[in-house]
Amino acid sequence: MGINSSQQIEYRRFRLTIAYDGTSYSGWQVQPNGLAVQQVIEESIERIGGERVKLHGSGRTDRGVHAAGQVAHADLPARIPARGWQQALNAILPPDIRIMKVVITKDDFHARKSAVSKEYRYFIWNASVIPPHRRLYALHVPDMLDVHAMRDAAQRLTGKHDFAAFTANPNRVVESTVRTVFSLDVRQRASEVVMVVKGDGFLYKMVRSLAGYVIRVGQGRLPPESAEAILASRKRTARVETAPPHGLFLWRVSY
Amino acid sequence: MGINSSQQIEYRRFRLTIAYDGTSYSGWQVQPNGLAVQQVIEESIERIGGERVKLHGSGRTDRGVHAAGQVAHADLPARIPARGWQQALNAILPPDIRIMKVVITKDDFHARKSAVSKEYRYFIWNASVIPPHRRLYALHVPDMLDVHAMRDAAQRLTGKHDFAAFTANPNRVVESTVRTVFSLDVRQRASEVVMVVKGDGFLYKMVRSLAGYVIRVGQGRLPPESAEAILASRKRTARVETAPPHGLFLWRVSY
Repeated sequence: MGINSSQQIEYRRFRLTIAYDGTSYSGWQVQPNGLAVQQVIEESIERIGGERVKLHGSGRTDRGVHAAGQVAHADLPARIPARGWQQALNAILPPDIRIMKVVITKDDFHARKSAVSKEYRYFIWNASVIPPHRRLYALHVPDMLDVHAMRDAAQRLTGKHDFAAFTANPNRVVESTVRTVFSLDVRQRASEVVMVVKGDGFLYKMVRSLAGYVIRVGQGRLPPESAEAILASRKRTARVETAPPHGLFLWRVSY
Repeated sequence: MGINSSQQIEYRRFRLTIAYDGTSYSGWQVQPNGLAVQQVIEESIERIGGERVKLHGSGRTDRGVHAAGQVAHADLPARIPARGWQQALNAILPPDIRIMKVVITKDDFHARKSAVSKEYRYFIWNASVIPPHRRLYALHVPDMLDVHAMRDAAQRLTGKHDFAAFTANPNRVVESTVRTVFSLDVRQRASEVVMVVKGDGFLYKMVRSLAGYVIRVGQGRLPPESAEAILASRKRTARVETAPPHGLFLWRVSY
């Protein structure tokens, strides 16, 4: 389409809801090694709108993590309506990235700063064998999990806590390692166990650390009562493992 | 492990329940072009047991069709127990093929001849956009389906009929094109519509033809009342389309 430089281009702020299969990507954010989801979408926007614009996500997702409802904003040429952007992007994006929704939003909407809560879901397949069509989207845990114990541990982690023991690199400079987990549920349906966590924000690898810890409790390798002492320690130790990325979905961002 | 030729090897008939992601395979059965699921499992059996044996499936599945519960039998060295075969096979098979169950069965059990019914499920994602993690396992139908009309058509196809109009190649030499469809249900849960069909046997591409026809009715392109006339015609025409393979799962075989 290209840019007509003799005309003033009008921009509007668009909010995109994005789903992706993280299997083949280096994560959400553009970085030196591997292909990032953000980059693929920015390049597609450029092909459609004729110019490169920056896409601002609600937050990063790690290499291999999936999304059902990542949210991002971008200031895009307004000559293409919201539905037009959605259709044009889905027409050229690879099928492992889909634009689920596009709306025009307020000029001061910010995908990261305006977010009030995020929901992540960690999927576990708890049976001796994982069916092939679930292998890329759930962690296989063959030993029978004690879901009751997992719920007990989850309950102890809910609320406002210093989660320094549940982040991968507590030495990173962050203003604070205190976060509020609004809810942490462990749901079970047949062989599938899902950890659903909602909070005001999450530290680096915090959700996968919570999942790794809760799974370990479910395996009987730690008692649920260990949660309080681990939180209080504010130290990351080998007791807390980081669960693999492919079980994790960024499920929803609320504003 | 190798064969000890000085000893008489004891064989038992084993029954295997197999799930596979058909995306990367040329189908169940060994054929000149592409890699077949049967072949991959036979080669794995050979690596474990030291000799090539034939694996007899309940029936073929086409290129790209999935299975949740394909059943096959083979006469295997009895020195390895059923659970040992399952674990050893899953340890060396690619993750898109899984042995869900292995049992020792009667010597006259035959995966194809002993089957009394088969269940297939055809998955449809009925929304404007298909989420990435469903793209390989469901057909995307963006236009809103009339599930009521689909159920009406499905009801008319249930029972004992001559399904010549619903097979891809009615000129193939087959004893009879009469089959009994025990049940044909169309289930809906949110954006997912699933056609569940059980029958005593299915002609070549019959399930995908039933799915293609029922979807067409759901799109309002044919009335449900057309079912009887199409059955009665016993002629395959353009009214019946073959739905793509990636929405189809061989779900269960009953004995």
